[in-house]
Amino acid sequence: MNVDIFKVPMAGPDDLEGFALLIKEKKVDPANIVAIVAKTEGNGNVNDFTRGFTTFALQSFLSTHLRCSRDMISKKVSIVCSGGCEGVMSPHATIFARSSGDGEEQKKRVEKRLAIGVRNTRELLPEEIGTSIQANEVSKAVGEAMADAAIDDPLDVHFVQIKCPLLTSERMNDAGARGKKIVTKDTLKSMAFSRGASALGIAMALKEVDEKNVTDSAICTDWSLFSNIASTSAGVELMNNEIVVMGNSLKSSSNYLIGHSVMQDLIDSEAVWDALKNAGLKRNGNAQLSKKDAERVVNVFAKAGAHPSGLVRGRRTTMLTDSDISSTRHARAVVNGVIASIVGDPMVYVSGGTEHQGPLGGGPIAVIAHV
Amino acid sequence: MNVDIFKVPMAGPDDLEGFALLIKEKKVDPANIVAIVAKTEGNGNVNDFTRGFTTFALQSFLSTHLRCSRDMISKKVSIVCSGGCEGVMSPHATIFARSSGDGEEQKKRVEKRLAIGVRNTRELLPEEIGTSIQANEVSKAVGEAMADAAIDDPLDVHFVQIKCPLLTSERMNDAGARGKKIVTKDTLKSMAFSRGASALGIAMALKEVDEKNVTDSAICTDWSLFSNIASTSAGVELMNNEIVVMGNSLKSSSNYLIGHSVMQDLIDSEAVWDALKNAGLKRNGNAQLSKKDAERVVNVFAKAGAHPSGLVRGRRTTMLTDSDISSTRHARAVVNGVIASIVGDPMVYVSGGTEHQGPLGGGPIAVIAHV
Amino acid sequence: MNVDIFKVPMAGPDDLEGFALLIKEKKVDPANIVAIVAKTEGNGNVNDFTRGFTTFALQSFLSTHLRCSRDMISKKVSIVCSGGCEGVMSPHATIFARSSGDGEEQKKRVEKRLAIGVRNTRELLPEEIGTSIQANEVSKAVGEAMADAAIDDPLDVHFVQIKCPLLTSERMNDAGARGKKIVTKDTLKSMAFSRGASALGIAMALKEVDEKNVTDSAICTDWSLFSNIASTSAGVELMNNEIVVMGNSLKSSSNYLIGHSVMQDLIDSEAVWDALKNAGLKRNGNAQLSKKDAERVVNVFAKAGAHPSGLVRGRRTTMLTDSDISSTRHARAVVNGVIASIVGDPMVYVSGGTEHQGPLGGGPIAVIAHV
Amino acid sequence: MNVDIFKVPMAGPDDLEGFALLIKEKKVDPANIVAIVAKTEGNGNVNDFTRGFTTFALQSFLSTHLRCSRDMISKKVSIVCSGGCEGVMSPHATIFARSSGDGEEQKKRVEKRLAIGVRNTRELLPEEIGTSIQANEVSKAVGEAMADAAIDDPLDVHFVQIKCPLLTSERMNDAGARGKKIVTKDTLKSMAFSRGASALGIAMALKEVDEKNVTDSAICTDWSLFSNIASTSAGVELMNNEIVVMGNSLKSSSNYLIGHSVMQDLIDSEAVWDALKNAGLKRNGNAQLSKKDAERVVNVFAKAGAHPSGLVRGRRTTMLTDSDISSTRHARAVVNGVIASIVGDPMVYVSGGTEHQGPLGGGPIAVIAHV
Repeated sequence: MNVDIFKVPMAGPDDLEGFALLIKEKKVDPANIVAIVAKTEGNGNVNDFTRGFTTFALQSFLSTHLRCSRDMISKKVSIVCSGGCEGVMSPHATIFARSSGDGEEQKKRVEKRLAIGVRNTRELLPEEIGTSIQANEVSKAVGEAMADAAIDDPLDVHFVQIKCPLLTSERMNDAGARGKKIVTKDTLKSMAFSRGASALGIAMALKEVDEKNVTDSAICTDWSLFSNIASTSAGVELMNNEIVVMGNSLKSSSNYLIGHSVMQDLIDSEAVWDALKNAGLKRNGNAQLSKKDAERVVNVFAKAGAHPSGLVRGRRTTMLTDSDISSTRHARAVVNGVIASIVGDPMVYVSGGTEHQGPLGGGPIAVIAHV
Repeated sequence: MNVDIFKVPMAGPDDLEGFALLIKEKKVDPANIVAIVAKTEGNGNVNDFTRGFTTFALQSFLSTHLRCSRDMISKKVSIVCSGGCEGVMSPHATIFARSSGDGEEQKKRVEKRLAIGVRNTRELLPEEIGTSIQANEVSKAVGEAMADAAIDDPLDVHFVQIKCPLLTSERMNDAGARGKKIVTKDTLKSMAFSRGASALGIAMALKEVDEKNVTDSAICTDWSLFSNIASTSAGVELMNNEIVVMGNSLKSSSNYLIGHSVMQDLIDSEAVWDALKNAGLKRNGNAQLSKKDAERVVNVFAKAGAHPSGLVRGRRTTMLTDSDISSTRHARAVVNGVIASIVGDPMVYVSGGTEHQGPLGGGPIAVIAHV
Repeated sequence: MNVDIFKVPMAGPDDLEGFALLIKEKKVDPANIVAIVAKTEGNGNVNDFTRGFTTFALQSFLSTHLRCSRDMISKKVSIVCSGGCEGVMSPHATIFARSSGDGEEQKKRVEKRLAIGVRNTRELLPEEIGTSIQANEVSKAVGEAMADAAIDDPLDVHFVQIKCPLLTSERMNDAGARGKKIVTKDTLKSMAFSRGASALGIAMALKEVDEKNVTDSAICTDWSLFSNIASTSAGVELMNNEIVVMGNSLKSSSNYLIGHSVMQDLIDSEAVWDALKNAGLKRNGNAQLSKKDAERVVNVFAKAGAHPSGLVRGRRTTMLTDSDISSTRHARAVVNGVIASIVGDPMVYVSGGTEHQGPLGGGPIAVIAHV
Repeated sequence: MNVDIFKVPMAGPDDLEGFALLIKEKKVDPANIVAIVAKTEGNGNVNDFTRGFTTFALQSFLSTHLRCSRDMISKKVSIVCSGGCEGVMSPHATIFARSSGDGEEQKKRVEKRLAIGVRNTRELLPEEIGTSIQANEVSKAVGEAMADAAIDDPLDVHFVQIKCPLLTSERMNDAGARGKKIVTKDTLKSMAFSRGASALGIAMALKEVDEKNVTDSAICTDWSLFSNIASTSAGVELMNNEIVVMGNSLKSSSNYLIGHSVMQDLIDSEAVWDALKNAGLKRNGNAQLSKKDAERVVNVFAKAGAHPSGLVRGRRTTMLTDSDISSTRHARAVVNGVIASIVGDPMVYVSGGTEHQGPLGGGPIAVIAHV
């Protein structure tokens, strides 16, 4: 297996110039693209239409290049758009491509390299969203995606990005008509439940939590259960879970390594360095990566959210009492700034909504770097 | 001279519990207080009434304790409230008190310690606000405040906080009635001009710029002119400039040192470490100060603003195109997060509005630490 | 009884110039003031400190004039500050004063005139807030306030303004320590429960609902129960309910009449005209009141909130899906605009938070006019 | 000529279900569509991407139906998306179609009916945007569009919708490279200049202002010059002006009438009734249109903006001092609410940015109704 990753700046939600150039210069074959993860510049909340706009533009673009319908693209490529570029976060897309690679070369490898595996679960019923059934389906599919990535050891998995479904009024009504109970009647909350159940599904697959603890009642309640490498995002356009597993494998001939760590709170700079170190970069005694190492970083992926107490290191913050700016926006601004101040680049990916993804008030952080 | 500094958390704009406790426990004599610098939790823009609320509450409180009118307090104590606690910034007040100290002990000193000097300019005429006349008056008063702080060498000055006037409709009309020209008819812009002229006045006094370059037309235009230690803030309640000079002096018997540096952009973590080092704290090879050193930090004071290009390290940010959240809010969230990730405390002071205070897109940063 | 009412514009949360002038010109004796109802220019949500600022400023001002403590003023005068001046709503305060009046003149009266009655409930226990106990206490006190206003017939009551308590963490802990259950662990929600229980207390007193229906489980659940004349507002500074009853009475020698109606939705202009008519003003076939009638209007008081469906006249609105601006802000802008377009004055009082105050998506509207 | 107009609700920026149904049911032939005017649910300011998203979705949709490129659609159909659905404003699109009609029937007509004319100016040079040259080009094209609509008398024109260009950095640089001066270096301001020059071009064509007064220096300065029927909107995707003239003509066999009036301020309900009357609807003495008349209204189009004084009827509003919500958002919420309270439907079109469109603080209002 070979894997290629490209980070392209975006001048707006529908700016695909950087992407088009990659294709024009034959740096990436559009047929090999398996996933695109983008930061778009909306508010990251309910009325953030930049996610939909970017998805629409990307699908239109790929459907033209691959001569198929937008619908087909939607099945073939997992597109995750996370809204909210607060602080200095710079809008961009990360494009993941996978090809079969050079088998001969792989045989000689003794070092693990970045590998990617993808898998979708079956479509869920509305009443299954946010329940242990979803967690179980995700867990099973994560295992399959690991196999697809040629990764055996859970310790070699460093980031799992999932796109999961949510409940709409229609879906709730459908369940109701069949006499089934749903986890919540609130669309916004259903996103949290779906993200939470998906994250716990990852945690089960990677043995981070004991599966017997992942009960319906634990989801979005028992915050002692979490995954250190989960990043989940809910979207209206699907009813299954799209799973992208990233890790290191001897079977990969790619030129990248992935590493991760867990931020214990929003200003945990030590964890940032930890993740960089795990991706093969050097701690140098300075406040920032050396220029040479900085150039090796492809992207950093982190999740961020406010602690329910509103406290950080025992200090009161206004994140949860600010009725003008939501706490997710405050959290993203901070974590992006902290990471940028270390890697020297504000174009890194920080996303909100951290249910069962890292400890309360903290979140997973992963780094992909050139070898 | 002796100087004492206290940082107290605030649970709201009128929460003076921490302050009251200091007085009750006789840690500070209210009669010695010369300045209070607070971060309040409004938006930091035009309709941020938390600044006025905190000022009102502090003046009411001190007028009760010192048995004098609120008006008298306003003349005696320089109260600077900076609005905007974005990201993880924690609302608080820093209280500066000064007493005559122990002359005998001072004679024996061979090390410089934190000293504070205060001075007000004469009241300005509306037509002088934002002009080189204001800069000159400020420059003269900064010199006098240095003398008041027993500091001779400009290099021993590390932070100058100024509260300066702005133009209201009434003041504009007053100038007009006398046939005088004002710098702008826009109240908001007059704040920028007043901050800019004040900052250049500091720069003149400290020989950071050549005074012949500080012409009317250079103010808020020639951004190559700036001070590395200025922090200026405009308020409607005064017509003169209130100046607080902070530096190190052999004549001080205080237990604090002050140091500073200049952030070149919003994610300049190296400058944060520089300022810490200059205040006597050790660089330890880790991402954060050691616990012991962190406890020595009294507060960090920084200014933050977006570069007019909207770029940070060549990357597009959305700070200047975000019509929902003003760029000053984005900038404060980032700089506070970066500093907090190093000192391990989100309760540090970051303020917006950086005209002629540090280079474009960057800003001064000062640290006060226990010896 | 005599009643006087004054509406004064406010140039900011602490602007009491208009109020001071009333006292200076002896138009109102500060000792007679029983209530002040103000619209302040914050966001009307959790971090709206303009309400506290105005309350602080009013209490400081009155404590100086009446030579007593701020605390004493807080007991003597019911100050209700409602945040949020969206659209064209103009910040202002309405001051209610009451004196004993001229008994002889009252005997001769055959027409009812505006009368005001005030009463406080006992202090509630945390576990009573938001329950039927609160509703019952309010109901009893409303009856007493009616007697205080010399009003017998519930049909003569046209507006009841209540300030009610909320749950803080401390109060929740206090209940917990005594083994008592509270209605919610969420401070924001406790405000809704307290407003709702208070509104139902009014409805019970005025026979708008059957008291046996006002059970704990009906509060903030059964929206078919509501009062057509309730306006309730929760504040952190009290543990009892402060009640101001406004109606018309033969015992009053005031020069005002009060009338009311109920807006069925946010654009119910017919209801605005209805309320005006009930306060003695003429429907004239035009879109706006005649100049002469407009001058007779002292103020209009209305409550506004979004229907849970997000629909208005079957049309989708974005009020509930807008993550940048809360639905209460949208609702206030609209209702104020609709009223202003009829009375020809944007300085009218519209407040959010309509639990059990009018039908879902609508709200009470009252008009006080000169005879 | 025949004209057909359809108003379709939108459940989101890319929701074209209502539009698709019109085509499926053969109510409109997509080939006949000349203009689409939509209200989308962004903030209506710089980072409102809902306008672009809706435009992208509409063009994709029409390009599929008409089997041509998106680019071709952009040339053939004038798509104006106005962002901002504040208050109760309901997102929707109005679709204008024009066909050749039944010549015989037209000969017999003695009553004027709604006619539509379209015309584009030549592409402007960057240095012409916002100048009297733009105004002149627009004026000429409006005359041609009137001819296209078979309207001779300027009094028969009741609404002119223009989409005009703006200055980007690239366009500014292009002008600079050729040694040409541009009206402003600020992209946002260039939108105001372009809207203003376009509005004055309309005013010239319709003899509302004397063309010798429309000088470069008068544009966006002399607010005594304005059009009562102009609605202009700037967009980045074009360099010419797209003009849609709406009026009544004997040559039209449509079943609609258009009328207009001018709101003198944001709460001018009389003007709303005036416009309704001019479109053939009856004033009925009630606060709202009769149900029968309400059903005849197709849509109402209005422009709204804050008066530079911030005053409405002499009262202070907070529209211009609110740093959380821009004044255009406040203004749209109010004007939409006022109109909705009269026509009984919140799905009407209110747009911001009123340079030279109606008097300061007011704006044009037009009504299209079934005969």
